[in-house]
Amino acid sequence: MADKIRIGVLGASGYTGADLVRLAVRHPNMEIVALTANSHAGKPMRQVFRHLAHVPLPDLVKIEDADWGSVDAVFCGLPHGTTQAITKKIFETYPQVKIIDMSADFRLRDPATYKEWYGLDHVATDIQPEAVYGLTEHYRADIAKARLIACPGCYPTAVLLALLPLAGAGQIDFTDLVIDAKSGVSGAGRSLKENVLFCEAGEGMSPYAVGKHRHMAEIEQEIGKVGGIQDLRVNFTPHLIPMSRGELCTSYVKLVGGATAADLRNTLVEAYADEPFVTVADEGVLPQTQMVRGSNYVVVNVVPDRIPGRAIVISTLDNLVKGSAGQAIQNFNVAYGLTETTGIEQLPLFP
Amino acid sequence: MADKIRIGVLGASGYTGADLVRLAVRHPNMEIVALTANSHAGKPMRQVFRHLAHVPLPDLVKIEDADWGSVDAVFCGLPHGTTQAITKKIFETYPQVKIIDMSADFRLRDPATYKEWYGLDHVATDIQPEAVYGLTEHYRADIAKARLIACPGCYPTAVLLALLPLAGAGQIDFTDLVIDAKSGVSGAGRSLKENVLFCEAGEGMSPYAVGKHRHMAEIEQEIGKVGGIQDLRVNFTPHLIPMSRGELCTSYVKLVGGATAADLRNTLVEAYADEPFVTVADEGVLPQTQMVRGSNYVVVNVVPDRIPGRAIVISTLDNLVKGSAGQAIQNFNVAYGLTETTGIEQLPLFP
Amino acid sequence: MADKIRIGVLGASGYTGADLVRLAVRHPNMEIVALTANSHAGKPMRQVFRHLAHVPLPDLVKIEDADWGSVDAVFCGLPHGTTQAITKKIFETYPQVKIIDMSADFRLRDPATYKEWYGLDHVATDIQPEAVYGLTEHYRADIAKARLIACPGCYPTAVLLALLPLAGAGQIDFTDLVIDAKSGVSGAGRSLKENVLFCEAGEGMSPYAVGKHRHMAEIEQEIGKVGGIQDLRVNFTPHLIPMSRGELCTSYVKLVGGATAADLRNTLVEAYADEPFVTVADEGVLPQTQMVRGSNYVVVNVVPDRIPGRAIVISTLDNLVKGSAGQAIQNFNVAYGLTETTGIEQLPLFP
Amino acid sequence: MADKIRIGVLGASGYTGADLVRLAVRHPNMEIVALTANSHAGKPMRQVFRHLAHVPLPDLVKIEDADWGSVDAVFCGLPHGTTQAITKKIFETYPQVKIIDMSADFRLRDPATYKEWYGLDHVATDIQPEAVYGLTEHYRADIAKARLIACPGCYPTAVLLALLPLAGAGQIDFTDLVIDAKSGVSGAGRSLKENVLFCEAGEGMSPYAVGKHRHMAEIEQEIGKVGGIQDLRVNFTPHLIPMSRGELCTSYVKLVGGATAADLRNTLVEAYADEPFVTVADEGVLPQTQMVRGSNYVVVNVVPDRIPGRAIVISTLDNLVKGSAGQAIQNFNVAYGLTETTGIEQLPLFP
Repeated sequence: MADKIRIGVLGASGYTGADLVRLAVRHPNMEIVALTANSHAGKPMRQVFRHLAHVPLPDLVKIEDADWGSVDAVFCGLPHGTTQAITKKIFETYPQVKIIDMSADFRLRDPATYKEWYGLDHVATDIQPEAVYGLTEHYRADIAKARLIACPGCYPTAVLLALLPLAGAGQIDFTDLVIDAKSGVSGAGRSLKENVLFCEAGEGMSPYAVGKHRHMAEIEQEIGKVGGIQDLRVNFTPHLIPMSRGELCTSYVKLVGGATAADLRNTLVEAYADEPFVTVADEGVLPQTQMVRGSNYVVVNVVPDRIPGRAIVISTLDNLVKGSAGQAIQNFNVAYGLTETTGIEQLPLFP
Repeated sequence: MADKIRIGVLGASGYTGADLVRLAVRHPNMEIVALTANSHAGKPMRQVFRHLAHVPLPDLVKIEDADWGSVDAVFCGLPHGTTQAITKKIFETYPQVKIIDMSADFRLRDPATYKEWYGLDHVATDIQPEAVYGLTEHYRADIAKARLIACPGCYPTAVLLALLPLAGAGQIDFTDLVIDAKSGVSGAGRSLKENVLFCEAGEGMSPYAVGKHRHMAEIEQEIGKVGGIQDLRVNFTPHLIPMSRGELCTSYVKLVGGATAADLRNTLVEAYADEPFVTVADEGVLPQTQMVRGSNYVVVNVVPDRIPGRAIVISTLDNLVKGSAGQAIQNFNVAYGLTETTGIEQLPLFP
Repeated sequence: MADKIRIGVLGASGYTGADLVRLAVRHPNMEIVALTANSHAGKPMRQVFRHLAHVPLPDLVKIEDADWGSVDAVFCGLPHGTTQAITKKIFETYPQVKIIDMSADFRLRDPATYKEWYGLDHVATDIQPEAVYGLTEHYRADIAKARLIACPGCYPTAVLLALLPLAGAGQIDFTDLVIDAKSGVSGAGRSLKENVLFCEAGEGMSPYAVGKHRHMAEIEQEIGKVGGIQDLRVNFTPHLIPMSRGELCTSYVKLVGGATAADLRNTLVEAYADEPFVTVADEGVLPQTQMVRGSNYVVVNVVPDRIPGRAIVISTLDNLVKGSAGQAIQNFNVAYGLTETTGIEQLPLFP
Repeated sequence: MADKIRIGVLGASGYTGADLVRLAVRHPNMEIVALTANSHAGKPMRQVFRHLAHVPLPDLVKIEDADWGSVDAVFCGLPHGTTQAITKKIFETYPQVKIIDMSADFRLRDPATYKEWYGLDHVATDIQPEAVYGLTEHYRADIAKARLIACPGCYPTAVLLALLPLAGAGQIDFTDLVIDAKSGVSGAGRSLKENVLFCEAGEGMSPYAVGKHRHMAEIEQEIGKVGGIQDLRVNFTPHLIPMSRGELCTSYVKLVGGATAADLRNTLVEAYADEPFVTVADEGVLPQTQMVRGSNYVVVNVVPDRIPGRAIVISTLDNLVKGSAGQAIQNFNVAYGLTETTGIEQLPLFP
């Protein structure tokens, strides 16, 4: 077995960080040497996440107290806006470190777009250009050579895996995309907000951030790139669903060039024939979050619309795994030349 | 107080029937004199629905054993396909009885359409013409005179209350309607199916009946009627959400005639200004099922789409109340000249 | 109809306050004239609780800005420790006001016990003696004459309704009571705490406050009173269950004097024969929270234990209704000589 | 790596069978060669459990169509009453096969007790004596030599891991055990029963099988064995909780010999110091199902009771993993001399 690669996790007290730790503990090529969480610094991880009490882990420390010299790879689960500065700082002293960023800070290539959506000036525009968009199935070769990987948001992962091949094949109208998205509550993170209390989010559902969810920018960037469209605008409407994990995107597309729903499905089957984590469901089988919970798998499928000339593309994933920590590890595996499925091949947990 | 109106409930062992009983018990002008449920005939209602054990109720009997002569009004919560024959039979002997049908059997005016969607020949085509579509807010005058009221499906109620005024105002394109619908599990009824087991439907969500849900026919019928379009086709895509009650429809519409989202919202505000059960949410407030649970209220709103020239119309209701039993009682109140809100004015239960 | 009684609600931004408002709006003898909520003062209630947006309500004000002179009765849903001072102050100026307190501040008759459990000196020891413990079924006569009613905690209501008659009948051993209690998450209130986030409390369950839950003091006080035992100690072990509403207490009792489980059940049947809100389930039927959700009903039953000489007493209620706001209104009805069931006779909401 | 051991799974269409398959697919020393499920025979597994569609699996066959000669080990997830005959038959032809039984058929050593609880004559009394009770931590040496391993029920696993060491240390009164148990709905299996529909089991909770749950017999057998008590009777009262996975048992014990809660905790700490899957929670930390979901871990702890001379012992596990499929694999590992944690070392899934 290869030597262990020493990893650090920035922001280990969030759900994303915790899920990364959960998987990293059992990854045969990882050794966790640093966990940071400013507000919980000094505490053992077992106090912050009781489900991790079964194994020994480093105590949480402040970012500035971590010894980045002892770390080969950094996973970053910080809130957006905080990652750029720390990334820059780590690279200055330890340019050999690889950073796999699960935040939004390096996903958008254009700093102006970043500012438009996140309301902040990008403070690391010098390193932004080397960031690779970490949608593994579509940027694998670049990821293999990168030292800064900007993992996609959970929604964009679900949407783009479904739509990019169709866009590339010229089978759908780029300007008429309606994406109705549904997410479990863990997508909102662990911070204390009224709308994610059990009594508020349970036994009910609601749209949120309609017309302004930041993941829209990534979707527009990536689909626009395929289509060579500068200012693509899509409809992306997220809903909060009373479940912890899981995301399902129902995309309503207009077919072009005489394509049928079956053609679209074939495009996906071909595109993902050799992919270990993307499953095109059997014909007529509708993807559901239960097919992927707790796993790095994505399920996609295409079904005909009742309106002629349209189709419905459905995709689902676990927002904390393939939508975040799992895909980050997948990218880590690619970046270090490991078997891509290492440490993330668990089958979904059902029921 | 007016004399009590004697009611019978056909199909009292389903969720719809039970919710009707729940409300009828406390309705000041109703007296429950017959409850039928063929498979549970002979049992006390308290054994079939434990939450109704607090009050005395007639035992369940077979349909053929009920004395329809002692009944003024019949609420019908039978599965589709079974209502036509029994309705016909009751009318033959007791033409003065009013029937408020919560099943699908009389909703579609065209028997051919009925056959197309339900796979059955309509066996009461002679009385079908007198059936009034029981969307109270839009057919009130007809309901007041009817003896056969075909209450809309739960989804059509949510969709049509949101879209009919907009269609009527000529503000939306009838041919480009994408309706992404989400429902709690009670919409599937109480029958034993694997997909509605707690472990299957919980902590997960799934689309279902995509492209073939029967409620689509009603939506097309009613919107088509406003627009004078014979063969209107809409996209209607339902999803099963892990909650018991509640339905939310996100309708993506193309604006015509220069209308804006704000114009659409105004249309709804005006249309429902005097309606006791339809609330247009404050500007920018997104409807959520938590706003209506357990009540006869509907909440609607319109928000701008990021794509110019489009808008998003959101509507929500409790599928068992306004989507079924509550609306049936509302129609009963109208039909008998009672105050329309009688017995169904409870505020939503939250949390 | 009697004139409306003008009410004010202290602490209207909590779940208890909101549920009181929900019921009060439809109570035929109540008129809501004041709603207070210090942190939300100035806001319309519809912004704080969206499910109440269907009806007009007074805006929220600070306690000191409410005009208590315009109020006949005050419902208090403040956190413990804050109620005593305000109660005292209101009584000083408006001695004719009736105060129905849903907080814990006046439940314990002994100020020393209050201090022991709540860690605070009682600041209204002069009016404490006139507080009546508001367990309606057992203190009805006193409540009818009281101007200060200390409604029991949700758990004590469930436990005492089940055990007081048995204790009174001398059928159970007071010193060997094990009460395993389970509550939905709304019992924890609306404050932002990590353990009640959807992702923390969902799909899982946990004991909490074991050996130190404050409701234990009330249970010991009331059962001890019946038995004439000064320092009674009971086991009371609460668990947090992934549901919003509902509470179920499983009490394990040792039988004395040759009593059997059937004897105990008979005692309950007799004790509650004329009670409108207490249902003794049919023999062998196990109480479940689904039988009472959203209602003021309580269901109790007794079943034999496999260990000879022991029995299991089970009781269930909705913590926000019979466990709080509903019982408060029941007490209000008693105190004002109204029909006791007025405004709280809704049947349970199921499913 | 050792050669693969070829396994067959009897009853692969239940939750227990499916969870075994989920884990077996990724077990480095297992090769799945046969899956049986009589009612679904002929179907691909992916149609019966959609979450297993990501990997190739043998199609489901009838028991009589499986080639037991090609199998080294059989996992049995059949309903009780059906396992004895098939076990006997397999052993007759293939005596070298090891059978790891997850059903209840060989757990009770006394055929009379089996008949008393299961209402059936034991039809394999000749092989019953060689069955080892598969509570790994307490029967490890026997399991290593066994060819027939009767894995404990989910509840007994949780209860016995907590109580056996305390019973063995003589610290608790065997005759005064009250065990209040709570389980997620998956414990009821995948069969279609009304009480486990989403709408029936969700947002509510209920006791069930009070005084007659069959797992009681195992608990009495094993604790009785330690104490040398022939006819031990314990109180065991299960409750159905609205979550899919997870089980928590709150055991109320009377201390003997001057033992304290701290002494009991120390006993557990010592007993499980070297156990890979049993975690004694930090002092004062209350076990919750969230600590073990989806994993083979058990968490136990002891806290003082408010009643002097008593203590509360709490234990939790995932009923489908450590309570069934996980423990079965743990036993398989022991039986084949593999590292005991192989294939079941995933950390819990949270949130």
